[in-house]
Amino acid sequence: MSPVAPGLVLTRPQRIAWLRLIRTENVGPVTFRQLMNRFGSAEAAIDALPGLLKRTGANPRITTQMEAEDELAGLERYGARLVATGEADYPDLLNYIPASPPLVTMAGGENLDWARTVGIVGARNASSAGIKMTRTLALDLGEAGYTIISGLARGIDTAAHKASLATGTVAVLAGGFDKIYPDENIPLAHDILDQGGALLTEMPLGWEPRARDFPRRNRLVSGLSLGIVVVEAAKRSGSLITARLALEQNRDVFAVPGSPLDPRAEGGNALIQQGAKLITNAADIIESLGSADPSRNALFDPDWEPDFTSEAVDTAPPSTDDTARLLSSLSTTPVEVDEIIRQTGLSVGTIQTLLLELDLAGQIEWSSGQLVALRYR
Amino acid sequence: MSPVAPGLVLTRPQRIAWLRLIRTENVGPVTFRQLMNRFGSAEAAIDALPGLLKRTGANPRITTQMEAEDELAGLERYGARLVATGEADYPDLLNYIPASPPLVTMAGGENLDWARTVGIVGARNASSAGIKMTRTLALDLGEAGYTIISGLARGIDTAAHKASLATGTVAVLAGGFDKIYPDENIPLAHDILDQGGALLTEMPLGWEPRARDFPRRNRLVSGLSLGIVVVEAAKRSGSLITARLALEQNRDVFAVPGSPLDPRAEGGNALIQQGAKLITNAADIIESLGSADPSRNALFDPDWEPDFTSEAVDTAPPSTDDTARLLSSLSTTPVEVDEIIRQTGLSVGTIQTLLLELDLAGQIEWSSGQLVALRYR
Repeated sequence: MSPVAPGLVLTRPQRIAWLRLIRTENVGPVTFRQLMNRFGSAEAAIDALPGLLKRTGANPRITTQMEAEDELAGLERYGARLVATGEADYPDLLNYIPASPPLVTMAGGENLDWARTVGIVGARNASSAGIKMTRTLALDLGEAGYTIISGLARGIDTAAHKASLATGTVAVLAGGFDKIYPDENIPLAHDILDQGGALLTEMPLGWEPRARDFPRRNRLVSGLSLGIVVVEAAKRSGSLITARLALEQNRDVFAVPGSPLDPRAEGGNALIQQGAKLITNAADIIESLGSADPSRNALFDPDWEPDFTSEAVDTAPPSTDDTARLLSSLSTTPVEVDEIIRQTGLSVGTIQTLLLELDLAGQIEWSSGQLVALRYR
Repeated sequence: MSPVAPGLVLTRPQRIAWLRLIRTENVGPVTFRQLMNRFGSAEAAIDALPGLLKRTGANPRITTQMEAEDELAGLERYGARLVATGEADYPDLLNYIPASPPLVTMAGGENLDWARTVGIVGARNASSAGIKMTRTLALDLGEAGYTIISGLARGIDTAAHKASLATGTVAVLAGGFDKIYPDENIPLAHDILDQGGALLTEMPLGWEPRARDFPRRNRLVSGLSLGIVVVEAAKRSGSLITARLALEQNRDVFAVPGSPLDPRAEGGNALIQQGAKLITNAADIIESLGSADPSRNALFDPDWEPDFTSEAVDTAPPSTDDTARLLSSLSTTPVEVDEIIRQTGLSVGTIQTLLLELDLAGQIEWSSGQLVALRYR
């Protein structure tokens, strides 16, 4: 089932090395996997980074051993743990999303059902009807055995967590484990842990969430869920971003309808027009999820998933000309690597090396793990 | 386009004969067509009725010449006219529905666009939000050139007609032209006529509408429409019957969504779950109707449509045994005629004759023109 080796348990030095690598500037989940595949281990990748960066002239900060040890110790003081993909504790549903985090920080949730999950998202300025609807859905789904995933935001998120405290809920944070947002929900975060629920984040300890971290967090809300429910959402809201991410992750999207005269119903109604399932109660969701299997029919090529075995790419070192040729073939519009290979005539090995260098130098970015573009400045 | 001969204009004696035939007990639209096809004209069918009925022992009332002349004269005093299928004034969209009425009573509407039409239906006890939604939809559709069809009921129907008085609206009545229901909407009916709209019914002058006449009327509301919009509807409401009929007629069904906490939204939300299109404004409807063509992809075999030419069925007269054999093959569950032919081994001609006799005797009923069943008593 899981695309990574089952039964993995990192040693403490390995966990520190994974943490150093993922916390290093310009290393995201995609680059992390590329480095792991190329060098076989996080330790070897870290050792190789200075060499890789030399030719680019860039000088990203490599997280030090001490910084990583400090973060891990800090997390342990909070009662949190760092879980790597492939470890028993890592939520399996996350393995099937593009750019899944190699490491997540988790607290609590040891006895949660992470396989039967529904995400509930919606407006922060929810109406009383929206809150009531959320409470009813979360209660009924919880009683039916589903774990409720949400983002600990005001409004719909808060109502979803509160109604599922007794049956199990997971709050995904946009910042560090010690930077719960909004402040007013710190007591709710404690309640979640006290009642067997979980907090989860991929961000470093101490990280203050910025605006751009919320969409990134939303991909984990949907990624942890078999399907997500949008309860109240205006047009151009974060909830609609979550819905789009859920579709990209091959997850079900459900929406609660509302009167066209109610602006808070615009997002949900538009989702239904675009193909989301109209639901009016938990039974509608449960019936539809009966056939959900996010590991099947993935939108993304399952071959892309890393196997963390070392495959030495044995090619001549790329030249400066090669770098220029590659850069001229890129723009801020994402393209497939195959297309770049066709356009430049460069070998696969050369392209892989160059893209990794440019990635670490912060000059390119991956979207969904398979498309690459110049980073927009 | 039209499945009947274009350019038909009935003479006054023909019109009287059509009226006598369709007003005769047990003669509905399906039987009317069978008689026309068999005898070539309404006059010939009326002359043949006594002979057809003799063997059945039944004695349905045949409408007299004087009764038909009285109704026609009465309608003319009201400024209404009797329009036959195939005549220029007959709304073409009606030709494509099963069991379309051979004759309709119409007043007004001479300059309406009968080809670009939208039906709007919904709850009688509509909410103020539902009324507002209806008004906005009807106004915007009217301004876009669509004629609004509805049933002159309280609530949504009334709001739909009122908002489209200036641009064109058609009220379909469940009773006779002189029995407008509800009484409080008699002034609205006059306003509709005064402003160029139309009233239409298939029921006789003087007919008080009964409960069962409303679903029958609803098939004309949808039949006159390219698509229908359900604005507010409870479960098991007349509006949902109209929606079902519209689907059977291959017409688009649109529904306005609403909060699951609002009982008046249950019907619309359920329709959307079953495949109706969620709409929030007139533009949604207009966009979708761009490709509507009810004459294509009909659910019903177009070959079934009558051509009104005489085809003498030349077979030996059926025996009493044949009648018994046919009756024993029928139940109150509708079956196809082909199935009856297979089961009884009787010839097509014999079956046609027997079914016509039993139909006129009130012992069987047709549903959708192709399925036949014993009449439920």
